[in-house]
Amino acid sequence: MGEHHADFANFETSGREEALALVLQHYEALTTNQDNWVCNLANASSLLWHAYHTLQIPVNWAGFYVSYGQDELVLGPFQGKVACQTIKFGKGVCGKAAAEQATQVVCDVNKEPDHIACDGETKSEIVVPVVSNGETLAVIDIDCLDYDAFGPLDQYFLERLAKLISKTCKF
Amino acid sequence: MGEHHADFANFETSGREEALALVLQHYEALTTNQDNWVCNLANASSLLWHAYHTLQIPVNWAGFYVSYGQDELVLGPFQGKVACQTIKFGKGVCGKAAAEQATQVVCDVNKEPDHIACDGETKSEIVVPVVSNGETLAVIDIDCLDYDAFGPLDQYFLERLAKLISKTCKF
Repeated sequence: MGEHHADFANFETSGREEALALVLQHYEALTTNQDNWVCNLANASSLLWHAYHTLQIPVNWAGFYVSYGQDELVLGPFQGKVACQTIKFGKGVCGKAAAEQATQVVCDVNKEPDHIACDGETKSEIVVPVVSNGETLAVIDIDCLDYDAFGPLDQYFLERLAKLISKTCKF
Repeated sequence: MGEHHADFANFETSGREEALALVLQHYEALTTNQDNWVCNLANASSLLWHAYHTLQIPVNWAGFYVSYGQDELVLGPFQGKVACQTIKFGKGVCGKAAAEQATQVVCDVNKEPDHIACDGETKSEIVVPVVSNGETLAVIDIDCLDYDAFGPLDQYFLERLAKLISKTCKF
């Protein structure tokens, strides 16, 4: 690790497991003594974006939707193009993950009847809920320009990230 | 404008004045009936990032620090590499803009004695305060890999964006 915060976003690896493990490690380092959720999710978005881009996986959106009450998600920090502002629990892939408190891995968003298209170029998506004491606090949402970009390894590490987020952030 | 939110981040122009005017126009469209500051600043970061990149200006960070009290800035939504979490009012370029409630245009950050380097690659920077009723709510911060990247035109449009933000966001 170098002397600047930006160095946390420099992933010198070609392995997905190593890159995602580094995301967790860097997230923990960045959130020591810092529980501001906006700050922590903004840096987490940057870590995810740069990890996948280091792996040459064409992620076009990486970020968060955050719960307001237990019926609506509102756009949180992210990296990528402009996104939809609000999503009702149960609607689309993010809303389903929030309502069911279960990770959604979508190989082809065009085959998902209820998919909300913020970006017509997105081909696949993974959404992981951040849950604490039975409440959905937020969802991690990552979109990719490739079909079938995400699998069990992504799910494993993103679910670990979600647990870290629920422990380190005050919402 | 197309049918997806992401299309707001597609700037088909080669002119800086037109691109920055479009940022304002798109920001207004995106914040109609939406006053959530995290949501609005997240989309604003995306608009700024994509506008400058369309112009082939190598912006490496575009986003916000938000006031907690009137003595500390905390990292808000942004696009780019991981950034410093907190900045005291008066410290560095962001802290100076927050404390003095005045835009800072820095041609060469290495000549700025009090510059806080989140990324050692940054060469120039513009910071514009978002002020309401005498209080600094936030600062817009944009960094570039080129020296002397920002001038009066950027200042003009970013100060208009800051006014729009103070009107459209509940902090």
